[in-house]
Amino acid sequence: MSLLKQFDQKNIEAGKELHRFAGELYPICRSITGDGIRRTLSMIGDRIPLKTLEVPTGTPVFDWTVPKEWNIRDAYIKGRAGKRVVDFQKCNLHVLNYSTPIRATMPLGELKPHLHTIPQNPDWVPYRTSYYKEDWGFCLSHNQMLALKDEEYEVCIDSTLEDGHLTYGECYFPGRSDDEVLISCHACHPSLANDNLSGLTVATFLAQLLSGRDLRYSYRFLFIPGTIGAITWLARNRETAGRIRHGLVLTGIGDKGRFHYKKSRQGNAEIDRAAAHVLTHSTESPEILEFSPSGYDERQYCSPGFNLAVGCLMRSVWGNYPEYHTSADNLEFIQPLQLVESLRVCAAILDVLEHNRRYVNVNPYCEPQLGRRNLYRSTGGEAIGAEINARLWMLNFSDGKHSLLDIAERSGLPFASISDAADLLLHNHLLSLVPGDGKQGTDRGELSPENSLRRS
Amino acid sequence: MSLLKQFDQKNIEAGKELHRFAGELYPICRSITGDGIRRTLSMIGDRIPLKTLEVPTGTPVFDWTVPKEWNIRDAYIKGRAGKRVVDFQKCNLHVLNYSTPIRATMPLGELKPHLHTIPQNPDWVPYRTSYYKEDWGFCLSHNQMLALKDEEYEVCIDSTLEDGHLTYGECYFPGRSDDEVLISCHACHPSLANDNLSGLTVATFLAQLLSGRDLRYSYRFLFIPGTIGAITWLARNRETAGRIRHGLVLTGIGDKGRFHYKKSRQGNAEIDRAAAHVLTHSTESPEILEFSPSGYDERQYCSPGFNLAVGCLMRSVWGNYPEYHTSADNLEFIQPLQLVESLRVCAAILDVLEHNRRYVNVNPYCEPQLGRRNLYRSTGGEAIGAEINARLWMLNFSDGKHSLLDIAERSGLPFASISDAADLLLHNHLLSLVPGDGKQGTDRGELSPENSLRRS
Amino acid sequence: MSLLKQFDQKNIEAGKELHRFAGELYPICRSITGDGIRRTLSMIGDRIPLKTLEVPTGTPVFDWTVPKEWNIRDAYIKGRAGKRVVDFQKCNLHVLNYSTPIRATMPLGELKPHLHTIPQNPDWVPYRTSYYKEDWGFCLSHNQMLALKDEEYEVCIDSTLEDGHLTYGECYFPGRSDDEVLISCHACHPSLANDNLSGLTVATFLAQLLSGRDLRYSYRFLFIPGTIGAITWLARNRETAGRIRHGLVLTGIGDKGRFHYKKSRQGNAEIDRAAAHVLTHSTESPEILEFSPSGYDERQYCSPGFNLAVGCLMRSVWGNYPEYHTSADNLEFIQPLQLVESLRVCAAILDVLEHNRRYVNVNPYCEPQLGRRNLYRSTGGEAIGAEINARLWMLNFSDGKHSLLDIAERSGLPFASISDAADLLLHNHLLSLVPGDGKQGTDRGELSPENSLRRS
Repeated sequence: MSLLKQFDQKNIEAGKELHRFAGELYPICRSITGDGIRRTLSMIGDRIPLKTLEVPTGTPVFDWTVPKEWNIRDAYIKGRAGKRVVDFQKCNLHVLNYSTPIRATMPLGELKPHLHTIPQNPDWVPYRTSYYKEDWGFCLSHNQMLALKDEEYEVCIDSTLEDGHLTYGECYFPGRSDDEVLISCHACHPSLANDNLSGLTVATFLAQLLSGRDLRYSYRFLFIPGTIGAITWLARNRETAGRIRHGLVLTGIGDKGRFHYKKSRQGNAEIDRAAAHVLTHSTESPEILEFSPSGYDERQYCSPGFNLAVGCLMRSVWGNYPEYHTSADNLEFIQPLQLVESLRVCAAILDVLEHNRRYVNVNPYCEPQLGRRNLYRSTGGEAIGAEINARLWMLNFSDGKHSLLDIAERSGLPFASISDAADLLLHNHLLSLVPGDGKQGTDRGELSPENSLRRS
Repeated sequence: MSLLKQFDQKNIEAGKELHRFAGELYPICRSITGDGIRRTLSMIGDRIPLKTLEVPTGTPVFDWTVPKEWNIRDAYIKGRAGKRVVDFQKCNLHVLNYSTPIRATMPLGELKPHLHTIPQNPDWVPYRTSYYKEDWGFCLSHNQMLALKDEEYEVCIDSTLEDGHLTYGECYFPGRSDDEVLISCHACHPSLANDNLSGLTVATFLAQLLSGRDLRYSYRFLFIPGTIGAITWLARNRETAGRIRHGLVLTGIGDKGRFHYKKSRQGNAEIDRAAAHVLTHSTESPEILEFSPSGYDERQYCSPGFNLAVGCLMRSVWGNYPEYHTSADNLEFIQPLQLVESLRVCAAILDVLEHNRRYVNVNPYCEPQLGRRNLYRSTGGEAIGAEINARLWMLNFSDGKHSLLDIAERSGLPFASISDAADLLLHNHLLSLVPGDGKQGTDRGELSPENSLRRS
Repeated sequence: MSLLKQFDQKNIEAGKELHRFAGELYPICRSITGDGIRRTLSMIGDRIPLKTLEVPTGTPVFDWTVPKEWNIRDAYIKGRAGKRVVDFQKCNLHVLNYSTPIRATMPLGELKPHLHTIPQNPDWVPYRTSYYKEDWGFCLSHNQMLALKDEEYEVCIDSTLEDGHLTYGECYFPGRSDDEVLISCHACHPSLANDNLSGLTVATFLAQLLSGRDLRYSYRFLFIPGTIGAITWLARNRETAGRIRHGLVLTGIGDKGRFHYKKSRQGNAEIDRAAAHVLTHSTESPEILEFSPSGYDERQYCSPGFNLAVGCLMRSVWGNYPEYHTSADNLEFIQPLQLVESLRVCAAILDVLEHNRRYVNVNPYCEPQLGRRNLYRSTGGEAIGAEINARLWMLNFSDGKHSLLDIAERSGLPFASISDAADLLLHNHLLSLVPGDGKQGTDRGELSPENSLRRS
């Protein structure tokens, strides 16, 4: 099975579909709790088998407590003329996310401390939150604020902050092994496209690719509110977390930037090497970042008590592009081809994990005679090709200790070439699989049409 | 306790005081034995609690023997006119250090083999010694020598080379642990400022800084003649030497050059990492040198039988600047601000050693909620600051294995930031100290005024 | 004993002699079996004590079988005018090596699939083989082929491919230890000078240098057909192979290119470090290559079942220069000075292996007093020289763990300086040899004139 080979011919089509789905999710006002994330999960659930879970307000989760549920219907600032000068209906970033309700009239001077702007990008509306300190506020463009006259304003935030639930979604595909691969993305940001509709849509389509296949690993997809969602999931699944062998947090993978992979805290885990290998061989100028304890939910998965092998795949790094956490992170900021390239990268990384086994050369003393098996060139004296080269690497380093990824790294050849050579040599009885090193599935040609991209 | 913070406001004042003390020591004609080093130690002993030790000539010390004691009263070369053309009273470098006595008259041709000059710097007088081969000689500027007429000269070296003692000084501050930090500098060079009045004065002031404090480690300062002094001390203190956990040889730290730290033979000892860290974070373009068996007394401390974690802190490297071992290494060659910066660097290195402990995150599963403890920013969506970043690093890597220095190195943050974050998180019961990993003193605010810089 | 010092004065003379021997071997039409390699081995055997071995066709050797023996007397293509347009007598590369016999007349169209040329170098004749697939063919310059008219041709290859033997040569010098150094070179290429008469001649002269000496290691020289020869030798000497501690494949060491050393599969074996050290210190811009499973017979020695510490010494890398495997790799392509420099490099590498021992400083506590043994400069204050520096390195790192090569690498000094310092310090009873770490021979001055270069 190669995930990657499934959508080779459908790049543009798949990219457009990814972008279309992002467009459907874009208008929803999400937050870490409430109906926004519920509606989002329901739309994802139309595409993949998603289980939605609800955790009551007040539930203790490690050092934290599940917060009140926030819902919002409307919010605005009206000037003396009765016209909405700031209007939540036009853009849900306008309200400080998690604002407490307010209805009041006040002079500009009193309002101002509750206004958030970005002076250096005066046309953009910032995205701000106040989850853990009760507060209210508005976000608006700096030019909007400068235009505000010194007069009385009617201020309304029609929100509720009440006992309710924290909601998250989980999609699980059992594999031949109980060992799991985790794909996690935060689903709590309102109308921001790269952060993180890009992650949500790519994860959804990646789950579609896996659906119905014979898999080596079991796969768990989490669509969760950032920070508190990961903490809640980990608090409720301490046992399950122990099964996670490899993991990826997907975020900010729709923009035009080159790829960045931030390593897990372990620093040299198989996922770290697989991601670095795939990015190096199939994308332009990728950058591999060392682990640091700021970022996304890898912070929780890589907290010292868990220390899971979970890295983070990004294109531009959060905080390092001006559109980050502003209204400029919109549907134009992400593009179909970038989304589908990110999906391909994810598929290629999973292909590495699925196929990374160790083999033993059954003729370890000297080279076997490839020529009489039609696995070598017949006229001597000329250069040998890349395919033969991959076979020689496989034979020389298949001593039961080196994995395919070890050999790919050492040879400088792409994993797929090494993996193809392994298949061929195994078929020719020149290699044997190290016993117990990941049972080989019988999944060749097992693609169920109903589970391919076309299903979506 | 932070040594560094003690003299933040007194840079210029302290620098001038360091330089003034160097000026007092400068005229003395020191050698590896004799009254010059005795007088020097006595002046150091006026400032810090110094014990002076005397070891008789002939005492065997490992493969060596304590040499005869050398004292000198006068030396000159007089021309036919009876005028001193070379005069020890003007500059004590003029005599070959450790010269045997001589009184004779001889033609220039016979005198010449006993004259040492530096042709490439014809105005400077070289510093030369003949400790272990009985010889006499004069050092003079090349121009002085060229001016010597071909006539008879009266030559006088009024020195004595007789059974006596080798003298060195030791200053010890007991700490909470018997484990020691060694600060060693050679005190045998005559009127040479950088080599090594810079080391002597900085070590003296560093001892003043430590005096009267509650210290984690015990500190031992050695003011010794080069080579034979270190060998003598080690021969008489083989047991004590085993307690030395970290050490620094201080030499050539008053000139304008950038800092160089030469690693101990171990190569990755805590002192090596601490020195490299401090230099990298607080000085310009420092260079970290690998250990080599030529240099100063680290040669003896790092001999294979001892192999102590003792490195060498320098600015310009001995032998690599033209003024080295010449009369141009004078009081103008060293400057107050350079001396005090070197003192600060030493203090910062000791601060690292004193505070480098390991902690355990008491909430290792996911991040603790910093916000409700006022340890986080309250409005989400904005960048997090350097202080919060240091807290996240401390929490994530405090697994009982990583020391503060490990975390500082891995995060790229200065040790002081990490150490401050550790204090704050410990105070908030988010960290605990690894039991037995260096008892924490109760020394905050314990500065005894009589022991601060002002005492000097 | 220093091999290197034996031919210091005879560079040009020795180089010319190497080249003369290459010239004698050049015209012979060698192949992996047959009389060509037999004659070659016989000529080598005139110079060194060589044992020639014959292995019958059909003998199974691991996954391979010893092939039929190939011999050739004549081959040509004659045009309608009866003139030889391609003539084996002029250049033995013209026949596809291992061609089956043929006598036929055929039109150009039928002949063409059997013709091999190099369009990008139209004046050169390529070297091609067909060992393991029965085929016939001719190699000719591209211009020759373009000149062929569309007519009938008489084609003749007067060869035999019959049951017979595979022939190889072995030269063994017993040393004080049974541990062996292997020098291997392929002897199967016809008129190609760099590949591999350069290897054959240098190996022959290297064997002459070793002959009659008291050696630490035993030395085994193999002159074998490529691939099948190494496989055959290994299949027949599985026990002996286990004694090989260090090995070098010599190939392509007569051209003007800078040196390349390809590491053994182990990657950090003593031979790898010795070769890298010698090349770095004594040749210009050498390049050290990581192991890869394509190349020469190191492929077999480094197959995973053997995994011997055998590297490959080259100048230009096979396949990376246009003359490779063409008629342009002729006697002018290799030069006397290049051959002798390669011989010197080999000698220097063997010198490292022969002398690389560990010592113990008998005065490990502080430095010993070198001055009273006349091993130090007597006037202090001046710089110390390179020889004293080497002594200090030896004393400091001779703790029984560091070998001379370790110390040479760490100090950056050439192995010979470190080795000379070791000899001197041993002589002065300041070092002792680690017991059992390679018995020291009594071979100083034991050069038997009849075994020196002059013998050749």
